[in-house]
Amino acid sequence: MSSTRRIPEATVARLPVYRRCLIELAQEHIPTVSSERLAEMAGVNAAKVRKDLSYLGTYGTRGVGYEVRQLVVEIESKLGLTRDSPVVIVGVGNLGQALANYAGFRERGFPVAALIDADPTKVGGTVAGHVIRPLDELDALVPALGISVGIIATPGTAAQAVADRLVAAGVRSILNFAPSVIVVPSTIPMRQVDLATELQILSFYQEHPVEPGRPQPAA
Amino acid sequence: MSSTRRIPEATVARLPVYRRCLIELAQEHIPTVSSERLAEMAGVNAAKVRKDLSYLGTYGTRGVGYEVRQLVVEIESKLGLTRDSPVVIVGVGNLGQALANYAGFRERGFPVAALIDADPTKVGGTVAGHVIRPLDELDALVPALGISVGIIATPGTAAQAVADRLVAAGVRSILNFAPSVIVVPSTIPMRQVDLATELQILSFYQEHPVEPGRPQPAA
Repeated sequence: MSSTRRIPEATVARLPVYRRCLIELAQEHIPTVSSERLAEMAGVNAAKVRKDLSYLGTYGTRGVGYEVRQLVVEIESKLGLTRDSPVVIVGVGNLGQALANYAGFRERGFPVAALIDADPTKVGGTVAGHVIRPLDELDALVPALGISVGIIATPGTAAQAVADRLVAAGVRSILNFAPSVIVVPSTIPMRQVDLATELQILSFYQEHPVEPGRPQPAA
Repeated sequence: MSSTRRIPEATVARLPVYRRCLIELAQEHIPTVSSERLAEMAGVNAAKVRKDLSYLGTYGTRGVGYEVRQLVVEIESKLGLTRDSPVVIVGVGNLGQALANYAGFRERGFPVAALIDADPTKVGGTVAGHVIRPLDELDALVPALGISVGIIATPGTAAQAVADRLVAAGVRSILNFAPSVIVVPSTIPMRQVDLATELQILSFYQEHPVEPGRPQPAA
């Protein structure tokens, strides 16, 4: 937290990627990493790594690189991952079930606290150890369980109404997987995930191949 | 295609977002759009929109803006979306099933052509109209069906072996949803999708709120 400079959006988006790479290194008991190696793992160039990490107030040591575990702690602190942010998933179709079962959420500090579906035939069923609750209970569940993130995995037509209810219930941010653009108050950070976006980016790189040896496009 | 400048990665990543916004406008029969309006929809600033679109050789008309349908065509041409890129999904668990059922892939030119699973109890079952085939058939299916994109939705431990088989079978690019980093030849564009990354980015913006009125972080 030594830096108060505003961190660019693109840097914020790369910090989770660096974190994932660093955790792999830590699991292999590798104590330090050069910006070149981290850049290779993350699919960016080394100058970008050094610039991104400078926003954390972290510059590494010449000839040694960065301390892997220390850097994980600094990134987690900047990303606000030092305490859990419980999640509610609204919409328990295939995607909602996949998300509910996704171990990476809990591992990264986003435990699933509740599942909600509007379909009465689904309510009462169990997915990933959670009983599916009706939409009517959303208002009570969010404060009761300290839920801070709402994930929308409904059909596109339901997404805006669900977003409005999540905001009214008190979530602090929203992740929208429904294939429709939603509007939320500017005080509520929201991200829209279109699973086809990644395929379109890949399509570009199929049409415009990178030169051999050049780092892959960053994910 | 009037521009031959190298398009920055961040611009490539935003083009699908602009395209999605433009298609919404087209569906509402809105013929033109200002860079300000498009920026608001996409969650970036207007100067960035104008700069990004300048890479397409497209500058809009002062006082009128951009032609919505023309801009969709130009973006699709640049992204290589003017012909279909058939997809194979390897790993038909919850996430694989969600992806197989995701209508957005077909709509955006990525029809699912085949589903593959290593589990003999899943082979022969049907998901989204496709019979699940065994891993052994991958080598034959890719050329036979003209598959160009391989999507990995297996457990993390299987991902690298599946990636190697996809490359050997002849796919042109890979999208990895498995929670483990994989390595592919530099001639094969690859993107790694970590569903928890979006939550970590949201967490940052919860901790560091944007000023009211400022555009939301871009998805």
